[in-house]
Amino acid sequence: MSRKLKTGVIGLGRIGQIHLSNLVHHMPNAEVIIASDLSTESHAFAHKLGVSQVTTDAYDVINHPDVEAVVICSPTPFHVPYTVAAAEQKKHVFCEKPLDVTIDAIQAAEKAVNENGVKLMLGFNRRFDANFSNVRHLVEAHKIGDPHILRITSRDPAPPPVEYLKVSGGIFLDMSIHDFDMARYIVGSEVKEVFVKGDALIHPEIKAFGDIDTAVIVLTFENGAIGVIDNSRKAVYGYDQRLEIFGSKGMAKAENNTTDTLIHFDSSGGHSSLPLHFFLERYETAYRVCLKSFIDCVLNDTPSPVDAHDGLMATAIGIAAMKSLTEGRIVRMDEVLELAQMS
Amino acid sequence: MSRKLKTGVIGLGRIGQIHLSNLVHHMPNAEVIIASDLSTESHAFAHKLGVSQVTTDAYDVINHPDVEAVVICSPTPFHVPYTVAAAEQKKHVFCEKPLDVTIDAIQAAEKAVNENGVKLMLGFNRRFDANFSNVRHLVEAHKIGDPHILRITSRDPAPPPVEYLKVSGGIFLDMSIHDFDMARYIVGSEVKEVFVKGDALIHPEIKAFGDIDTAVIVLTFENGAIGVIDNSRKAVYGYDQRLEIFGSKGMAKAENNTTDTLIHFDSSGGHSSLPLHFFLERYETAYRVCLKSFIDCVLNDTPSPVDAHDGLMATAIGIAAMKSLTEGRIVRMDEVLELAQMS
Amino acid sequence: MSRKLKTGVIGLGRIGQIHLSNLVHHMPNAEVIIASDLSTESHAFAHKLGVSQVTTDAYDVINHPDVEAVVICSPTPFHVPYTVAAAEQKKHVFCEKPLDVTIDAIQAAEKAVNENGVKLMLGFNRRFDANFSNVRHLVEAHKIGDPHILRITSRDPAPPPVEYLKVSGGIFLDMSIHDFDMARYIVGSEVKEVFVKGDALIHPEIKAFGDIDTAVIVLTFENGAIGVIDNSRKAVYGYDQRLEIFGSKGMAKAENNTTDTLIHFDSSGGHSSLPLHFFLERYETAYRVCLKSFIDCVLNDTPSPVDAHDGLMATAIGIAAMKSLTEGRIVRMDEVLELAQMS
Amino acid sequence: MSRKLKTGVIGLGRIGQIHLSNLVHHMPNAEVIIASDLSTESHAFAHKLGVSQVTTDAYDVINHPDVEAVVICSPTPFHVPYTVAAAEQKKHVFCEKPLDVTIDAIQAAEKAVNENGVKLMLGFNRRFDANFSNVRHLVEAHKIGDPHILRITSRDPAPPPVEYLKVSGGIFLDMSIHDFDMARYIVGSEVKEVFVKGDALIHPEIKAFGDIDTAVIVLTFENGAIGVIDNSRKAVYGYDQRLEIFGSKGMAKAENNTTDTLIHFDSSGGHSSLPLHFFLERYETAYRVCLKSFIDCVLNDTPSPVDAHDGLMATAIGIAAMKSLTEGRIVRMDEVLELAQMS
Repeated sequence: MSRKLKTGVIGLGRIGQIHLSNLVHHMPNAEVIIASDLSTESHAFAHKLGVSQVTTDAYDVINHPDVEAVVICSPTPFHVPYTVAAAEQKKHVFCEKPLDVTIDAIQAAEKAVNENGVKLMLGFNRRFDANFSNVRHLVEAHKIGDPHILRITSRDPAPPPVEYLKVSGGIFLDMSIHDFDMARYIVGSEVKEVFVKGDALIHPEIKAFGDIDTAVIVLTFENGAIGVIDNSRKAVYGYDQRLEIFGSKGMAKAENNTTDTLIHFDSSGGHSSLPLHFFLERYETAYRVCLKSFIDCVLNDTPSPVDAHDGLMATAIGIAAMKSLTEGRIVRMDEVLELAQMS
Repeated sequence: MSRKLKTGVIGLGRIGQIHLSNLVHHMPNAEVIIASDLSTESHAFAHKLGVSQVTTDAYDVINHPDVEAVVICSPTPFHVPYTVAAAEQKKHVFCEKPLDVTIDAIQAAEKAVNENGVKLMLGFNRRFDANFSNVRHLVEAHKIGDPHILRITSRDPAPPPVEYLKVSGGIFLDMSIHDFDMARYIVGSEVKEVFVKGDALIHPEIKAFGDIDTAVIVLTFENGAIGVIDNSRKAVYGYDQRLEIFGSKGMAKAENNTTDTLIHFDSSGGHSSLPLHFFLERYETAYRVCLKSFIDCVLNDTPSPVDAHDGLMATAIGIAAMKSLTEGRIVRMDEVLELAQMS
Repeated sequence: MSRKLKTGVIGLGRIGQIHLSNLVHHMPNAEVIIASDLSTESHAFAHKLGVSQVTTDAYDVINHPDVEAVVICSPTPFHVPYTVAAAEQKKHVFCEKPLDVTIDAIQAAEKAVNENGVKLMLGFNRRFDANFSNVRHLVEAHKIGDPHILRITSRDPAPPPVEYLKVSGGIFLDMSIHDFDMARYIVGSEVKEVFVKGDALIHPEIKAFGDIDTAVIVLTFENGAIGVIDNSRKAVYGYDQRLEIFGSKGMAKAENNTTDTLIHFDSSGGHSSLPLHFFLERYETAYRVCLKSFIDCVLNDTPSPVDAHDGLMATAIGIAAMKSLTEGRIVRMDEVLELAQMS
Repeated sequence: MSRKLKTGVIGLGRIGQIHLSNLVHHMPNAEVIIASDLSTESHAFAHKLGVSQVTTDAYDVINHPDVEAVVICSPTPFHVPYTVAAAEQKKHVFCEKPLDVTIDAIQAAEKAVNENGVKLMLGFNRRFDANFSNVRHLVEAHKIGDPHILRITSRDPAPPPVEYLKVSGGIFLDMSIHDFDMARYIVGSEVKEVFVKGDALIHPEIKAFGDIDTAVIVLTFENGAIGVIDNSRKAVYGYDQRLEIFGSKGMAKAENNTTDTLIHFDSSGGHSSLPLHFFLERYETAYRVCLKSFIDCVLNDTPSPVDAHDGLMATAIGIAAMKSLTEGRIVRMDEVLELAQMS
C-alpha cells in the first residue's frame, strides 16, 4: 500500500491555508504533522483541520524529526532561509513563488538543495491549470509545429492597496512573474531578450516609487519564437487569463473561464457572464494539482516539475524587465545572468 | 464556351426583385429576356437592371419564344397554373415555395412537368445556406452515424400584420414549411408521423381564425430518427435559425449568424451583437446559390436539387401538422397522402 | 456563533460517499454523527473521514438520539420507509431522487413529514448547478418575459448495463426525471400535459422489456409555455446538459461545460475539448450546494427548496410519459394525479 | 433626386476589378464613365460590366471632362503622380493603400489635394469591416473608458512568392500598414514610438534582402495607450484578423470570421470551420462600404474619412518599424517625421 508523505506547513496566510486545506482534504498520500504561523489567530484554522501540533516558530516545522517535506508559504524574504535550513535538515521543499527577488539568493537555495539531495518545487500553480497544461501538451506533441508567436494576456480584477504595492517588489516580480514562468513553460525554450513598454495608467502615483500598472512585455526565445505579455492591474470585468501559441503547423489558445455558460439574448444583443473572480477561484483546482505533483515527485523520486532553475529564470526575467523599463531598451538575459555570476 | 440560359421572371415583389438582381449581377451563365409584374411600379426596377422587355402579363414571359426557363415569384395561388403553362411550353421552372397549399394541385404540376420533360426546382433557399448544407454534408459523409434526434429552432423577429396572417394559410404552410423541408433534407429520410403542440401566445386574437404563433412540432422519420422543430413568430432578439443533428457517431449543429463577431466586456459581463436581422440578410447568399443551382441543373441536364416531390412533402407535412394541432393527436403522413390519392 | 447540524448518513454507495465527503469537508455548519451501509466494505470510507460510529443498520442512524437530520442515499425502494421512520422520530430528511416510483408512496412520505413538522428535501442537485440556477434567476427577474418555449437537451455518455436497465424503472423515472424537475424549476409552472415520442435506437433489445433509449418529450405548462426535452442514453462525445428558455422578452440558454477552454486550429479547422465526462464531474459543485441548502433550510427554519410536492410531480410526469409512450397519445397530468387520489 | 457621381477607374488588376464591379452593381449614386488598364486583356472585364469607354492610358481617365472622381488602383509608384494630376484637374481621388512608401511623396500629394480643394480618400478598407468599426464605435462612445492596451492579430494564410516579396517594400509597408492604420483608428490617438521584434521564421531566405515574415510591433500612443501587433505571413489555418482594445471601463474584441457556424462533436472533441480564406472573402463587404463612403463624402461634401494625413501616418509608422527592426531600438515617430520635414 502507498505510504503517506509526512509534511509540515510554514505560514498560514491566504495561500498557506489553501495548501493546508488541500493537504488535509485532497491528498490521500500526505499527512500534516505540524504547521506554523507567527500569528496565533491562524492556529485555530489548523486545529480545526485536525492538525494537532501548531507553533509560532517555523524552525519547529523544519526541525521536526517526523517531517519529511515542508511547504513554505511565508513572506518572500523568508523563502530562501527556510529552504536552505530545510534542505540542510534533508527535508524536501515546496515553496511559494517567487523563490526570491535576487538571483544570488536563489542560487544559494539551489546549491543547498542540490548538495543535500532533496527536491525543491516552486508553486507556479498556473502550469497545472487544465487550460494551460493542455496547450503545453499540444506544443509538446508538435501539433503547433515550431512556435513562432506566444501571446499571454494576464490582467487582475483590481490592484492591491498602494501600501502593498510599495513593498511588492514591483509589477514584474509580484504579478508578471507568473507569466514569465508560463511563457517558458508553453514555448519550451529559454528567454534570450526582454523588452518592456509600461506605464502607470490606473494609479499614476505609483510611478513615484518606480512601479507601473500596465505593461507590454516582448520576450525573444532561443528557439526563435517571439512572445508578448500584456498585463494590467485592473480589468473592470474581472480576472483575465488567456494565452495563445502560434506556430508553423497551427495555433492553440486558452480562453478565459467564466462563472457559468449562460447566454442571455434580449433586444439589445447577447449577454454572457463575468470571469471567475480572481486567482483563488480560477486556480482552485490548479493549486491542488500543483501540490499533488510535489507529493508525487517526492514519493516516486521523480524530478521536480518546477525546480530552482525555473525559479531563477522567472526572477531573472523580472529583473531584466525592470531594467528594460528603466533604460528604455532591449535587455539581454545574459546581462542579468552574468552580472549575477560575477557577484 | 459556356452558353447562357435565357430566363424570364414572373413577379417583381420582394423575392422577385432579389432573384432578378441575382440573375443580372451574379449569374454569368444566365440572361434575363423578359420580366413581368402586374404593377407597373416595379417595372422601373427591371429597366434599371437592363431588362429591356417588361410586361404586366405573366403569359408574355411564359410564351416568349426565346425564354428557356421561367422564375416564378408570383403569389402562391398562381404558382401551379404558371408552372403547368410553362411546362406545356417546354420551359424549365424555378418556383418560389410553397408550390401550393393542396396536394392535388402540386401533383398536377408534377404531372405537367414530368410529361413535358422539363425541370422544376423549388426555392427552398435555406438548403443552400452554408451552415445548413455543411451539416447535411457531414450527415451524408456518415460523420454523425445513424441520425437519432434532429432539432430545428426557427423563430422570426416579428410577426407579419394580422391582415396578412388571415390569408397566410397558417403558420405551418407560411413559415414552418421551410423547416419541414430542412428536416427532410438534413435527416435524408421521409417523415412518417407528425405531432404538434402550439398556441397563440403572442397574438391571442389569431386563434379566432385557427392560427397560432408558437409551435413545437415532433416529426418521426422512416429511418427511426425523431425530429423537433420549435417555431415562434416573434423573437425580440431577432431572427433565430439554428439546427442540430445527433446520431450514433456524434452531433453537428449550426449556430445562428450575427452581424459581427464583437464581444464587449464591462463590469456587468460580456455583450455580443444581435443576429442578422431577417431572412433577406441571413439568406442573401443562399438565395444566390439556390438560383445558381437551378441554372446549373438546366444547363448540365442534372436532376433538380429540390423537385416537385420535395414540394409535395413539405406541403403534406404542413397539412398533417394542422390536422394534428386541431385534433390533438399524432397524424400519420399516410392519412394525408392517401386522402390526396383518393381525391 | 452558528451551531452545527448533527447528521447521519444512510447508504454509502457512490452518491452516499459524495454526500458524506461533502458533509465532512465542506459543511462547516454540519457534523456527521453516524453512517450506515449494509456492506461493511464501505465502512472504511466513513472511518477514514473521521466518522466514529458506523453501522449496517439504517435504523441505528434514524433512531440515534443525537441525530437531527438524516441523509438518505439507499436504493430507491427504501427512500419512503426511511423517510417516514425518520419523520416519526422528528428527524429532518434529505433524500436522493426519486422519492419513489409510485405516487401513493410519495404521498405517504409527504404526510409523515407534514404531520411531524420536519423538513424534507429531495436531491435534485441540478437545480443547484450555476448554469441552470442562473437561467432560473433570469426567468424569476422577468428578463425573459412570459415563457413560451423551453428546450432541454440531456444526453448521457453511455448507457448503463442492460441488467441495470431491466430494474431501472425505465428511462423516464431513471434518467428523464431530472429533466422533468428541471423543466418545472425553470418555467416556474406546473405541467398540464405530456406527450412522448421515443425509440430504442441504441440497444433495440431493451424494447423487449418496454424501455427506450432515445426520447423526445413535449410538456405543456399551465402558464401556456411548451417544453421539449430530448434524451439519449448515449452521446459518443460525452455528457450533454443544455437548456434554453425563450419568452416574450428574450431568451436565455445554458451551454454544456467542457474540460477546458482550449481551441486548437490547424489546416483542417478548429478543435475544442470534450464535455466534462459525466454527472460526477459536471455536478460536483452542484452536489455540494444542494446539500448545503438543506442544512441551511433546517438551521434557519426556511422552506425546503425541493420538497415532497416537487418529488411527487417529477415522478408523476414520469408516469405520464410512460403512459404516453405506450398509448401513443397526449396524457393529461390529471389522469395520473386523479388516479392516485382515487387509490 | 440624388445625383450620380461620375467616376473613372485607373487600374483593373484584382483590386481594380473589385472596385469597378462594386461601382457598377452596388453604388446607385455613382456611374463609371471610363476605365483604364495597360493590359487590354482586362478591358473585356470592363466592357462586360457595361463600361463603354476603356483605355490603356490613365491620363484619359484623369483628363476626361465628364469624370468628377478617379479611383486609383494602379501599382503603388503611380499613386502619387496620378493623385497629383487628378487633383490639378480638380478631380476627387480615391486611392488604394499605401499612398506611397516615402513621406515626401505623400506630402506632395497632400499639398496638391489641399491646394486644389478636392477630396482624397485612401482605401484602408478594414476600417469599414463591421467587426472593427463596431469596436471603434464602442471606443468613441466611451464604453471602454481610457484606452490602455490594444492588441491586433493579423496573419495571412500564405506568403506571396519570394519574387513579389523582393519588390514589396517589406512586410511593414506591404502588410502591416493595414494594422498601423487600424491601430490609429481604434485608439483614436497618434503613435508616438515604435518598437519591433521580428524574424524570418517561415522563409529564412528573405532575410537576405532585409525582410521578415513574423513580427511583433509595440506602439506607444500619445494618449498613453500601448499597442501590440502580431503579424505572420503564414497561418496554416487561414486568414486571421482579430483585435482587442482594453481600457479603464472595459474591453472589446473582434473575433475572426469563419465560413460557417457549424460545430461538429465526435468522440475526439468539437470541430469548427476554417476562417474565411483571405482578404477578398473577409473584406468583401468592407470594400463596398469603403468605396460607398468615398462617394458619399464627395456628394455630401463631408470630410474624407481616411485622408492624406492618415496615409502619411501609416507609411511613417512603417518606416519607423523598419528602422526599429534594423537598429534594435525604440524609434520615436519624431525621428521619422522630422527627417521628412527637413528633406
